[in-house]
Amino acid sequence: MAPAEKMSALIKPYDQYGLKFTDDIEIPECGPNEVLIKVITSSVCGTDLHIYKSDSSISTKVADNQIIGHEFCGEVVQVGDIVITHDVGDIISSESHIVDDTCFQCLNGQKHLCQNSSIVGIDRPGGLAQYVSIPAANAIIMTDEIRNGMISYEIASFMDAYGNAVDTATTIPLSAKTVLVTGAGPQGLMAIAVALSTGADQIIATEVSENRLEMAREIIKTHSHSDHRNDLVLNAKNPDLVAQILKATGGLGVDVLMEMSGHPSAIKDGLSSLRNGGDAVILGVSSGDIQLDWPALIFKGITMHFRYGRKLYETWTVGRRLLQTGSVKLDSLVHKKSFTLEEFEEAFELLLNGEAAKIIFRPNG
Amino acid sequence: MAPAEKMSALIKPYDQYGLKFTDDIEIPECGPNEVLIKVITSSVCGTDLHIYKSDSSISTKVADNQIIGHEFCGEVVQVGDIVITHDVGDIISSESHIVDDTCFQCLNGQKHLCQNSSIVGIDRPGGLAQYVSIPAANAIIMTDEIRNGMISYEIASFMDAYGNAVDTATTIPLSAKTVLVTGAGPQGLMAIAVALSTGADQIIATEVSENRLEMAREIIKTHSHSDHRNDLVLNAKNPDLVAQILKATGGLGVDVLMEMSGHPSAIKDGLSSLRNGGDAVILGVSSGDIQLDWPALIFKGITMHFRYGRKLYETWTVGRRLLQTGSVKLDSLVHKKSFTLEEFEEAFELLLNGEAAKIIFRPNG
Amino acid sequence: MAPAEKMSALIKPYDQYGLKFTDDIEIPECGPNEVLIKVITSSVCGTDLHIYKSDSSISTKVADNQIIGHEFCGEVVQVGDIVITHDVGDIISSESHIVDDTCFQCLNGQKHLCQNSSIVGIDRPGGLAQYVSIPAANAIIMTDEIRNGMISYEIASFMDAYGNAVDTATTIPLSAKTVLVTGAGPQGLMAIAVALSTGADQIIATEVSENRLEMAREIIKTHSHSDHRNDLVLNAKNPDLVAQILKATGGLGVDVLMEMSGHPSAIKDGLSSLRNGGDAVILGVSSGDIQLDWPALIFKGITMHFRYGRKLYETWTVGRRLLQTGSVKLDSLVHKKSFTLEEFEEAFELLLNGEAAKIIFRPNG
Amino acid sequence: MAPAEKMSALIKPYDQYGLKFTDDIEIPECGPNEVLIKVITSSVCGTDLHIYKSDSSISTKVADNQIIGHEFCGEVVQVGDIVITHDVGDIISSESHIVDDTCFQCLNGQKHLCQNSSIVGIDRPGGLAQYVSIPAANAIIMTDEIRNGMISYEIASFMDAYGNAVDTATTIPLSAKTVLVTGAGPQGLMAIAVALSTGADQIIATEVSENRLEMAREIIKTHSHSDHRNDLVLNAKNPDLVAQILKATGGLGVDVLMEMSGHPSAIKDGLSSLRNGGDAVILGVSSGDIQLDWPALIFKGITMHFRYGRKLYETWTVGRRLLQTGSVKLDSLVHKKSFTLEEFEEAFELLLNGEAAKIIFRPNG
Repeated sequence: MAPAEKMSALIKPYDQYGLKFTDDIEIPECGPNEVLIKVITSSVCGTDLHIYKSDSSISTKVADNQIIGHEFCGEVVQVGDIVITHDVGDIISSESHIVDDTCFQCLNGQKHLCQNSSIVGIDRPGGLAQYVSIPAANAIIMTDEIRNGMISYEIASFMDAYGNAVDTATTIPLSAKTVLVTGAGPQGLMAIAVALSTGADQIIATEVSENRLEMAREIIKTHSHSDHRNDLVLNAKNPDLVAQILKATGGLGVDVLMEMSGHPSAIKDGLSSLRNGGDAVILGVSSGDIQLDWPALIFKGITMHFRYGRKLYETWTVGRRLLQTGSVKLDSLVHKKSFTLEEFEEAFELLLNGEAAKIIFRPNG
Repeated sequence: MAPAEKMSALIKPYDQYGLKFTDDIEIPECGPNEVLIKVITSSVCGTDLHIYKSDSSISTKVADNQIIGHEFCGEVVQVGDIVITHDVGDIISSESHIVDDTCFQCLNGQKHLCQNSSIVGIDRPGGLAQYVSIPAANAIIMTDEIRNGMISYEIASFMDAYGNAVDTATTIPLSAKTVLVTGAGPQGLMAIAVALSTGADQIIATEVSENRLEMAREIIKTHSHSDHRNDLVLNAKNPDLVAQILKATGGLGVDVLMEMSGHPSAIKDGLSSLRNGGDAVILGVSSGDIQLDWPALIFKGITMHFRYGRKLYETWTVGRRLLQTGSVKLDSLVHKKSFTLEEFEEAFELLLNGEAAKIIFRPNG
Repeated sequence: MAPAEKMSALIKPYDQYGLKFTDDIEIPECGPNEVLIKVITSSVCGTDLHIYKSDSSISTKVADNQIIGHEFCGEVVQVGDIVITHDVGDIISSESHIVDDTCFQCLNGQKHLCQNSSIVGIDRPGGLAQYVSIPAANAIIMTDEIRNGMISYEIASFMDAYGNAVDTATTIPLSAKTVLVTGAGPQGLMAIAVALSTGADQIIATEVSENRLEMAREIIKTHSHSDHRNDLVLNAKNPDLVAQILKATGGLGVDVLMEMSGHPSAIKDGLSSLRNGGDAVILGVSSGDIQLDWPALIFKGITMHFRYGRKLYETWTVGRRLLQTGSVKLDSLVHKKSFTLEEFEEAFELLLNGEAAKIIFRPNG
Repeated sequence: MAPAEKMSALIKPYDQYGLKFTDDIEIPECGPNEVLIKVITSSVCGTDLHIYKSDSSISTKVADNQIIGHEFCGEVVQVGDIVITHDVGDIISSESHIVDDTCFQCLNGQKHLCQNSSIVGIDRPGGLAQYVSIPAANAIIMTDEIRNGMISYEIASFMDAYGNAVDTATTIPLSAKTVLVTGAGPQGLMAIAVALSTGADQIIATEVSENRLEMAREIIKTHSHSDHRNDLVLNAKNPDLVAQILKATGGLGVDVLMEMSGHPSAIKDGLSSLRNGGDAVILGVSSGDIQLDWPALIFKGITMHFRYGRKLYETWTVGRRLLQTGSVKLDSLVHKKSFTLEEFEEAFELLLNGEAAKIIFRPNG
């Protein structure tokens, strides 16, 4: 059961574009409250792309030569001394946020907003590696639904990212609501799937990339079960975008905005498209400040819900159930080819080009 | 535009089983805040069956020779002097609860619980007639969705009853929830449809009538869009019913109970099947007192939501949207044959026998 | 009962600073759904000051020579033909927002955000006059609590403004919450009173005017009933304001921000002082766009509630009850001297100078 | 720092009325995730009285010769190997419910309804002893507020019981609500204090014991800060109790019922006194089944919230804050004399006779 002493991983060299493959790094130790995971599948999210590109917003937070990656699925191969919740052989999916369980937020129903949280793959070695060690509380056991085929190893690798989308799409119950989704990247696409599977009346998705517009059409089609819907996919570059959205909602504006892009114009157009008394749920991180028409927000009486992470563990419950029943189907997001860690440049290029939504590594082959 | 002076209707003679057909009753006047409706379709609910059978619970509340019926769809043929919301030619569906707009509840977001409400077809002449006069606020304009075929005249006749089911199934957001529905009469069947269309994780329906068990299977099938669901239809006579429900939920119990039957054993079994911290939503009116295991309810920490009527008009908004998109499909509830008023005995028998869920009259042919 | 044909009023001449007194304007007619009010007391809010100063934001919306004023208390002297809710002799307080009762918002629990609302004293003749005519639905009967002395004529004149504060302070239940109130104008002061009377754990009020800082201390003192509280009044010009607030909350930040000022720096400091997962309730209208640190809002996971008007009529219920029991005491806000309409310049100067919070006119002496 | 090897305690001999004092029982060991507490103050709740009286409902759940008591305050004298949250010298108050942190409820925001919870003083040795060992998560550190005098050692002993009252009185925000409290035992009295400190519009308390009626008057007086309130204390034996309550609420009925007694007639009268659309919050455990007028509950559209335990740890946050600011004052509940363990019969008699609300033991003198 003892893992080999050296392993392969992708690390981030300080101040260098991209990543570096190594096959000569030590397998992490397994602390008393941790489990050691043999990684089966690993995926990559927007934060990882920022690290890859050495964007100032994130890369200075990553230690030199850190193993990155926080989305992964694997098998428990070692269990820490005081862990009573896990067994060797469990198949787990990663929750990337490590919380302290003692701060005000942790003790008052908001663990996902822990004041002292740290993140796997940023603050400690991550999952783009053959092995990774994480607290047991961050290793969500999914043996059953994976073994019975309801959730694939590929999708199980990015439950953490999917959790953000589930959290965003369940902040406000979307049943019978008209919903504008600005930004059809992986988060936007998954949020659309959740919104439709929970009964959204109408989805209007906006996006600038042609590739993603097509993915939006595909995910809507997969999750629609009627010929009479008025779902709409719009190119966000369209100069009369807001007018189109208002028209599509009979002049009213949408009930709910899910802002997944972080782009100033999407935020502006999104808020302008919201009806009086509507809700904006905001996940997309902008690269800087955002300017708002404050009086308009007041006169419209809207509510803005800024979201971060996933509710521990309500969001996991909801997200897993939606996948287990087949209500949410994410297969179309997964790029056909799986990659070895050595092939990381090819894989990251697909994401940077917008050709793929989610790509999967298989660090142990 | 002036209606004919005499019309046909079904009236309730005092202290007589059944109803009486008449073709010699005056067309109602149209008060200043009312609209006069030429009825296209009329339907019948459980309350009407109680009236039909002269059940003591309801029939003493009905004036002698009252025109009954509160579920109908029709065309506006006359508009009261101070009505500015309706026009002749509008196609409307009936909301049966007339509220006073001045009591505490009406002024504080609970119009459906108005202290001084009266009911069409009980407290004033109803819609099992060629014409009926109601306050404009009770005539919900649905011209567009009916004319474009999204909602049929048949279904438009019982939007009021459907509203009860929508209200019950939206009291607690059901997305990703496991839901037990006790009682698969019209209300239970419609509630199942709404629950599934808003993303319920699992439906477990219980019922004693074989005919209704089959209808439950049918409505579940119509509103399921995956092969991997664990929905279940159970005969409530089964002695180990609660054990079966617990087993079907992995031992946890259901998140939500929707009690649609009013039967003591269904209430008991339903509450026993609820998980710690679950919610019971209760629409079914029992014929008498109900005895509860009070300590068990406390130790489980459940919440019981007793529901009456429909939220004015939030429930209408939600219910119409679900029908317009085809998310909810109620066609299978409607008995194939439409009836003239004269054929009322045949129609009511179908309901009393449990052979039909909803039957439709066409008072004007 | 018929009122005199001419009356006194304050009108806004187009493009002229200030107002104009006239005693030669016609008494308004009383429409069929309206009541004619003989004004007893009238008050003035921030919007009226914008009109007074001919600020571009508001004055173009006011018709030439419009009678302004939307906060008043008076006696019903005439009742429209179809009004059944009011009687001559009723003492009423004004609700300034006239809603259409038919739009999406009005039909779905958000009347205060009606798409077609109009405002008394802006869109139609107002209450800085001897008589004013308003829809019966806007004349809130308060005869009992005024006659029994629980609510004075002075305070009854600005229930509409008080309603904004009640709405803001009840959007999030404030019991046991730490609350930062930015801006101690009339709205901020009233919101503090409501927050304390509903059990706020700690009030931190920030303001730049020395006069208002003193009023904040006074209103806190009036509504505190313990020697062990940690309420705090801070000059917002203090360069380490945020540090002081953080220190006062044990480093956590406040649970709730009530932004009553509309000032960019107050908004910025207020949001910076909010804890992870906190709520910002925003009433203060800024004079232009506001720039926000968007990523910070996301990482903190806060919710922003923009508020407008008052919930019809939930806010009225709450606000009246708090006054009736003496839980909220607003006397300290009312300037000692009452004014005739002719004395308007003296009265408005007191407000423009920040010397008074609320001033009272007595148009009929 | 090592505690003496033997200690005094109160134990429950199987099948014997009352308790037994012993001074020859072993000091509990301190497990790896536990803290050992030297008890300063201990209190007694209703469950302990049931154990004392060997009531069938509870005493069979208690092991033979179990040390009872779950309400206590003390000093940490030993810390388990893996505990990182506590230090020797911390002053703590007990949370009696030990939860498993792994069941559905624990992972989904309802720890207080854990499926596998155990209770200190029932399922394991309790705090009516000189020493008690509990999981660190159940030892709430209150060093600061106790040392600075804001919370006394007496009150700190029964924070667990107070937590039930806080939970009940915060299930529904009570600001500006009319509230009926049926039962003025310790829980009812504390719930009244919380309701008033969070802005309840009106308290109507009902009770049969003259002593407790007086205590209710006292606690209302302590927490009222106006001469204009309409709070009411009524003897529940009064035959026209419901009529009196309706009259006191202007015929409307109360907004909220807090049922703290578990008595069938209190439950019946309480629900009859509730307005249409009101909420019943239920903490009082009855001795058997309860019969309800089910149709009335439906037609009134009420919601019933059954409560158990305290939200972990939201209720602790709220309860502590209310005490720290002096908003809630519980001193009048504490019986003047403190007791040694040997004096247990005298102390328990005071409770059984209804002469005292809370009595305090000082096991270490």
